[in-house]
Amino acid sequence: MTTSTMEHLLGEPHHDGSALYVSDATPTLGDTVTVRVRVPLGCTERRVHVRVVRDGEPRVSPARLVRTTDADRWYEADVLVHNPVTCYRFLLDEPTGYRWLNGRGVFSREVPDAADFRITVHAPAPGWLGDGIVYQVFPDRFARGTERTEIPDWAEPAAWDDEPVGSGPGVGSQLYGGDLPGIEQHLDHLEDLGVGTLYLTPVFPGRSNHRYDASTFDHVDPLLGGDEALASLSRAVHARGMRIMGDITTNHTGDGHEWFRRARADRSCTEASFYYWTDGEPGYVGWLEHASLPKLDYSAPALAERMIDGRGSVIGRWLAEPYALDGWRVDVANMTGRYADQDRTHDVARTVRRTMLDINPDSVLVAEHFHDSGADMMGDGWHANMNYSAFTRPVWSWLVDPENDVPALGLPARLARRSGRDMVATMRDFDAVVPWKVLATQWNMLGSHDTPRLRTLVGSPAMVEVAAGLLLTYPGTPVVFAGDEIGAEGVNGEHARTTMPWDRPDRWDDRTLGTYRELVTLRRSSTALRDGGLRWALVEDDAVAYLRETADETVLVLVARAPWTGATLPLAADAAENLYGGADLHPGPDGWSLPSDGPTVQVWQLT
Amino acid sequence: MTTSTMEHLLGEPHHDGSALYVSDATPTLGDTVTVRVRVPLGCTERRVHVRVVRDGEPRVSPARLVRTTDADRWYEADVLVHNPVTCYRFLLDEPTGYRWLNGRGVFSREVPDAADFRITVHAPAPGWLGDGIVYQVFPDRFARGTERTEIPDWAEPAAWDDEPVGSGPGVGSQLYGGDLPGIEQHLDHLEDLGVGTLYLTPVFPGRSNHRYDASTFDHVDPLLGGDEALASLSRAVHARGMRIMGDITTNHTGDGHEWFRRARADRSCTEASFYYWTDGEPGYVGWLEHASLPKLDYSAPALAERMIDGRGSVIGRWLAEPYALDGWRVDVANMTGRYADQDRTHDVARTVRRTMLDINPDSVLVAEHFHDSGADMMGDGWHANMNYSAFTRPVWSWLVDPENDVPALGLPARLARRSGRDMVATMRDFDAVVPWKVLATQWNMLGSHDTPRLRTLVGSPAMVEVAAGLLLTYPGTPVVFAGDEIGAEGVNGEHARTTMPWDRPDRWDDRTLGTYRELVTLRRSSTALRDGGLRWALVEDDAVAYLRETADETVLVLVARAPWTGATLPLAADAAENLYGGADLHPGPDGWSLPSDGPTVQVWQLT
Repeated sequence: MTTSTMEHLLGEPHHDGSALYVSDATPTLGDTVTVRVRVPLGCTERRVHVRVVRDGEPRVSPARLVRTTDADRWYEADVLVHNPVTCYRFLLDEPTGYRWLNGRGVFSREVPDAADFRITVHAPAPGWLGDGIVYQVFPDRFARGTERTEIPDWAEPAAWDDEPVGSGPGVGSQLYGGDLPGIEQHLDHLEDLGVGTLYLTPVFPGRSNHRYDASTFDHVDPLLGGDEALASLSRAVHARGMRIMGDITTNHTGDGHEWFRRARADRSCTEASFYYWTDGEPGYVGWLEHASLPKLDYSAPALAERMIDGRGSVIGRWLAEPYALDGWRVDVANMTGRYADQDRTHDVARTVRRTMLDINPDSVLVAEHFHDSGADMMGDGWHANMNYSAFTRPVWSWLVDPENDVPALGLPARLARRSGRDMVATMRDFDAVVPWKVLATQWNMLGSHDTPRLRTLVGSPAMVEVAAGLLLTYPGTPVVFAGDEIGAEGVNGEHARTTMPWDRPDRWDDRTLGTYRELVTLRRSSTALRDGGLRWALVEDDAVAYLRETADETVLVLVARAPWTGATLPLAADAAENLYGGADLHPGPDGWSLPSDGPTVQVWQLT
Repeated sequence: MTTSTMEHLLGEPHHDGSALYVSDATPTLGDTVTVRVRVPLGCTERRVHVRVVRDGEPRVSPARLVRTTDADRWYEADVLVHNPVTCYRFLLDEPTGYRWLNGRGVFSREVPDAADFRITVHAPAPGWLGDGIVYQVFPDRFARGTERTEIPDWAEPAAWDDEPVGSGPGVGSQLYGGDLPGIEQHLDHLEDLGVGTLYLTPVFPGRSNHRYDASTFDHVDPLLGGDEALASLSRAVHARGMRIMGDITTNHTGDGHEWFRRARADRSCTEASFYYWTDGEPGYVGWLEHASLPKLDYSAPALAERMIDGRGSVIGRWLAEPYALDGWRVDVANMTGRYADQDRTHDVARTVRRTMLDINPDSVLVAEHFHDSGADMMGDGWHANMNYSAFTRPVWSWLVDPENDVPALGLPARLARRSGRDMVATMRDFDAVVPWKVLATQWNMLGSHDTPRLRTLVGSPAMVEVAAGLLLTYPGTPVVFAGDEIGAEGVNGEHARTTMPWDRPDRWDDRTLGTYRELVTLRRSSTALRDGGLRWALVEDDAVAYLRETADETVLVLVARAPWTGATLPLAADAAENLYGGADLHPGPDGWSLPSDGPTVQVWQLT
């Protein structure tokens, strides 16, 4: 059910974890950090306090009024970083009663600590993750760089222009023959698009086109060109100033994996301790009960050593020359190390990270967690997460074509069209439970190899533009699944693993490609869009607007999925220069008038 | 800000963790539990599914329609208890889109997992905790059973009728001379009131009237009558079929404690490892920086052995004969074992519990956690918590006299009067994050030795009745601070530590005492009030109504703080018998009409 109420949020006190509000994002234990809160002049606060939880006990101390501008009173307070994750929120003492300000907004009642702001001592992902976008490539489907030689026994060869099989026989065996040399030959496309990081789904050999069922972690699949092809691609990527990331299944191997074959043959061998053995069929625990994907048991010290711990481990080796991966994306990180009454997932994540940083202090560790990852994202393990929950799902639910009958991801129900209020409430709920510096590097996606294609979900290039507008102006790391930028279609994850139609210009949506290029350029040109805070300005069924702000730059983003009533915002600005979308922002006695057309993406720089 | 919207909630699907909805509250790992959800006939669901998180990954499976009544469709689903804490929620697939049902209610958008329902393998508090109420006694202030002999050097003697000092000099030293024989002499009062459990704040000697600064855990304070007096009181309490609980500071000792004196004298002795030593003044870590309360460091194995682990530990010894305590309330449990980058609080809680259950499998372990205790209350350690967050604070905020200028507990702001909607939203937020069986035994209070007196906060016996009505009809363990039942007053925790005026009948509020007696009797007579589920029926600024239900009994509770508009509820009932309050419930074509007067407490049994 949607509601037509329009929420004006610029009248509310605001804080987030960006540099405008927090003096040191990654302090050392024992440091004191200054936090700032802005309170619009229209508020009636008598005093502002900060509430900091220390060793499980909240302490409240006064904030100092340090500055009054035309629009806001600014307060500062000291936060002692006594615990590795230090939680705080603000108390506004007002004549009608106190209110709390936390990561979800302002509340005139008691609220749990879960949405408190957080300062942590854990370093965030390195800055390069924000240089341009991350571009996801599914190697079998991107480009053929070499002639196909042999066809493995499990595979059924497909022609490059064939439609991917979406379900049933052929889903995992349909082999198009894309390879790493093919990717290397098309790096111009990535560079033109503004790609900063190339992320490859698995390159180890398996018995499927997706290769999440590795038979070894020691070599790159010869079908992709082998080890040399990866080394060559890595050199080429780095030569262009880009980065390259791999994809690893810490949770499981394929049942054809050399470790598993050895374990099955001899239950007394070391590798037998790597797996969970059971009495029933098939005799071991598989990922989601798939016998082809035996799950790894991190209570085995030898597994940690082989897989994640130290330079000689799988995690470590591929970060070294000549492959020099700049990071890993970890498959089903949410399940890794978790089984029944065991929960070693945080240990696994911390060990993986330590191993990586030992080899390359500038490397990145990203988790796949489709769901509520909050408890796993305090920043001591995974740097960031594939942000389905706080970005992909709410954006889809706002923009899905109402005529569209696709199921909601992983649910036996139709993906329903929700209001802008629902989208923003979901984003705030999920954003609030991670530290800002994690939020600011989360992998935001409009789709992946596990989802329907955006274009199919939203139904038109105009709506793709609205989605891309959100992606490229929202805090986090924008991730694009290869093909989305040219309007590729697909009704589910498998069907969406389309090939790039290099030789079929008729299948390139040039409008969409232009949209992506322009928005990526815009993001790269603006410090505020890249590193600024996030202040919601307006939330309505069909339109949302927010400010991205640094000390030096303020950018206003308006995104509308349909024509709406328009609104006037009390922006503290003398001028507004349009950066994208082309509409003017008109000043008036009550503020600046936002255009009411839609679908649209409009971005202004305020001065 | 209050809003006048009235929420009718009986039209919403409902589930909670009570026996009506969950086949086995404490299964074994690997068991399958049947969960049930009721969906009112007015809903439009096509299908219902259950979503269960297993090893970090949600799985969705269909629920079965098993029964249709005049009011509801009932669905059942299977939940595999694969993890010690198994989280689940329901999906309602409806033509307008799916909705989620979790512990906070129904949502038409994606929501985080924090409010999922929870089944755990951990046993709840034993059933006796629900036999009658818990009665909290602050020993210095309840009754003098023996003539005062000596006055310790730290104390200033007070006459029994003196007003307690609320702040400044004398707060901790004013000694009234209540003792354990005094309590034993007044057990008739407890029995008349319907007390099931006597809970004593500390009885170990210290250098204060509150005795939270123990100088030993080996003996009962001679000022209270010594060890023999506790043994005698315990026998007398048990002889009446009641239980007795103690209060322990696992977090700290007094600076006069024998361990601490030894540690200070010889930093190489075992006891020196029990404390956190620092370079600055006073040279060690104190609770909230109080030098008089040095904090205990559970990284010292010898401390665990001495304090919490095994029959010979402090925790263990007092549970054995002749003291035979039935449980412990743990002071500042939220901070116990937490310091800087150490967090051993769950280990401490589990060890304390194991020690207790080894000696007395029927004993109870209750935490003091004033704040958001959710993460500490999964039920493997503390059985229950002093429920300031989910009960005391929201009830106070609803009932506080608007003329009253008391500060909100622990906050530098006035306790503000909030709407019934705010109260219920806060209750649901905090209730939703603990398993139902924990919620069902939480220590609900209207005040304690750490708070102002209820009577002072709400301003009149009529409002005390409203508060007591909530206390005695809400899920959880009702806890009464001695004196509240006769209308004692006090503006803060210290000022509220009033003596019981045994010889001053003029200071007994007989109306309030009658109210308490009648409501306690009502609760004890009703399985639904004691063990039933909780279904919110109506939430309005000035009135709230809810159902407490078992398979055999349905009780409707209406509580109003002021006259309100009244409402008609679509109750599935043929008759309604008033159990408390005296008002009739009138049937009509649209349902049953609730009376609109207030303040009032009305309770009906529906058949």
